Amino acid sequence: MHVQHCIVSAPGKAILHGEHAVVHGKVALAVSLNLRTFLELKATSSGKVCVDLPNIDTSLSWDVSELRMLLSASLGEDKETKLLDVELLRRLREFVGITDGNLDTRSMATLAFLYIYLSLFGSGDLPSLSVSVWSELPTGAGLGSSAAYSVCLAAALLTASGAIPAPLKDTASTARWCQEDMELINSWAFQGEKIIHGNPSGVDNAVGTWGGMLRFLSGKIIPLSRVPLLRILLTNTKVPRSTKVLVAGVKDKLNKFPSIINPVLDSVDAISCTCEKTLAEMTSQPITGEHYNVLEELIDINQSQLNVMGVGHPSLDTLCRVTLARGLHSKLTGAGGGGCGITLLRPETDSSVVQSTVQDLRDCGYECWETSIGGPGVQQHSPTSVKDEVMEHLSPH
Amino acid sequence: MHVQHCIVSAPGKAILHGEHAVVHGKVALAVSLNLRTFLELKATSSGKVCVDLPNIDTSLSWDVSELRMLLSASLGEDKETKLLDVELLRRLREFVGITDGNLDTRSMATLAFLYIYLSLFGSGDLPSLSVSVWSELPTGAGLGSSAAYSVCLAAALLTASGAIPAPLKDTASTARWCQEDMELINSWAFQGEKIIHGNPSGVDNAVGTWGGMLRFLSGKIIPLSRVPLLRILLTNTKVPRSTKVLVAGVKDKLNKFPSIINPVLDSVDAISCTCEKTLAEMTSQPITGEHYNVLEELIDINQSQLNVMGVGHPSLDTLCRVTLARGLHSKLTGAGGGGCGITLLRPETDSSVVQSTVQDLRDCGYECWETSIGGPGVQQHSPTSVKDEVMEHLSPH
Repeated sequence: MHVQHCIVSAPGKAILHGEHAVVHGKVALAVSLNLRTFLELKATSSGKVCVDLPNIDTSLSWDVSELRMLLSASLGEDKETKLLDVELLRRLREFVGITDGNLDTRSMATLAFLYIYLSLFGSGDLPSLSVSVWSELPTGAGLGSSAAYSVCLAAALLTASGAIPAPLKDTASTARWCQEDMELINSWAFQGEKIIHGNPSGVDNAVGTWGGMLRFLSGKIIPLSRVPLLRILLTNTKVPRSTKVLVAGVKDKLNKFPSIINPVLDSVDAISCTCEKTLAEMTSQPITGEHYNVLEELIDINQSQLNVMGVGHPSLDTLCRVTLARGLHSKLTGAGGGGCGITLLRPETDSSVVQSTVQDLRDCGYECWETSIGGPGVQQHSPTSVKDEVMEHLSPH
Repeated sequence: MHVQHCIVSAPGKAILHGEHAVVHGKVALAVSLNLRTFLELKATSSGKVCVDLPNIDTSLSWDVSELRMLLSASLGEDKETKLLDVELLRRLREFVGITDGNLDTRSMATLAFLYIYLSLFGSGDLPSLSVSVWSELPTGAGLGSSAAYSVCLAAALLTASGAIPAPLKDTASTARWCQEDMELINSWAFQGEKIIHGNPSGVDNAVGTWGGMLRFLSGKIIPLSRVPLLRILLTNTKVPRSTKVLVAGVKDKLNKFPSIINPVLDSVDAISCTCEKTLAEMTSQPITGEHYNVLEELIDINQSQLNVMGVGHPSLDTLCRVTLARGLHSKLTGAGGGGCGITLLRPETDSSVVQSTVQDLRDCGYECWETSIGGPGVQQHSPTSVKDEVMEHLSPH
């Protein structure tokens, strides 16, 4: 192994504007969400590969020798493959005991880990190692938790295998990989996403890798060069929803009322473009209150447009009402119909207002985090730079 | 006088779809609101002209001789004039004691009455009469109460003067005038509206006269031939608002975000057209639940679009939420920012649901009426056909 120990993290993802409209060929803006997934990798001499996923109460361990048997002679030739190794995947599904309908988080996480581990190390000796992953992200909430996991796996295992160098220098607390290495991380993370999701858009792993913001249009993903870091609240209404049903509902409405809904999609497209322009200005000019006024107005308008599309929910109306009572503006993020919402905080928003708002939302039965969007993508951490509460989960005493 | 006694009524007005969009060249649908203004006219031999307006605690009386002095020789030549007699209006303002800034309801109502009375009777003897007006409409709520008043004045005074015949036959309970007579009523009612409002669109008096529904586009008013009568709740949130400020707000938003707001106006235009088409179908085909589903969906969509335009209000969100909890769909009507909203009732909506909803809304501090839209315009009533509670206000014992 090329490293004895490394800690990496990757952010989650939120849709700032353009959810649903993107399905109909309009722009969406995806941003990194600074609720991060952390992965600690340690080389061991136990002859075992151990995976700890405390978020989902999962602790697995295999002998290196049994994993070796899953490899065929043809494996591990091309670490940069864009295509999934279907034969390896079939064997892993059998090994993990996954039947076709079984898509639970634990099985998918195991499958993605073993696939990347065996693909990257299969051409040489399989190393003994332990991997521990802790995420600040809720799972299944449309916040890219699986992509953040895949990005962490890819970054740590590629680094451990020597395919890319560890970027962290002695004195630094965090460090990022160069563009080329990030491209490799992203392509392996995308493999992980494919294993977990079947047919992912690639947006989530791209955000997890590059961070910041990216523009997504007709399947094309364009990272935006510079965006400001924005303070937000991320709220999970915990109302379950089906993305498929919601997407189908918008399509039905579009088919039923094309003359009414098509302009709505155009309007949302313009919201994304106006937001992108405003954020670009905020990095090239002094940031003013007016910039935040515009961002707030765009949030309000888009939230109403999402209601027009029928993907709102009373729990989201409550989120908007409760935060507006504190002068803060919110919209749903992702599929809607419940799920999560984001609330923009202004630079001058007092922490007492933030705390009161968080409490109001928790009183509604929601989960709520103070975090930020637009922050860095995948990075390596020195152990001392990681928050104690995270380290506690990664390496419990 | 050509009649000794007559009772007339005219409906209020609600905007079904297209408020605000109409300011920017899009279609609006105005409908009659069956909260009516009733006027009773009696010929007397008192030598006096008496006006009773119990809604605003107003009881006025003038000697016919003092009113005669307000007339100049040139008056009363042309009963169909489209232009206000500025000289008469000036004298009346002085007589009533109106200074320029004074636009209170009582003064405006007095002015409109005296202007139409003197214009219609000025060429002959001024008759002694008493006029009593009672309205079910709240005033100043954008529901066309001044137009309903003007339409009643015009219909009763034109009938009393013999300019048009009384349409009521012996055995009938209500009757309407012929098209030509209604045009005359409408034109005099428009004069009343001009006196009260300065620069009215003419929509309110047209709805008060013709009833049903009319399409308003770029200043052109087109009555629609047939529309179904729809049961509704009319709710007054009692939140005061300034139409001028709200209209200016939409214009500002349009100037600030043209690419976002122009499609919204297009979408609202399509809502009005789709609604008009659906209502037309409901008069030419058997009415189905699907027709009501469409009407409900259009209401929800337009309400969200009005929120996009920034003319919503928490009180209106509450209206929508409270009624939706009973399975009913609501939108603001008119200027928004508070003011009034309408809630569609389905034919099968049980009266217990209606009563519960009305109570819920009253518990919010709102006024709420169960009424209908699309009903008849100005009509003459036999005394026995008028509800006792209305007669009680018109001719108290």
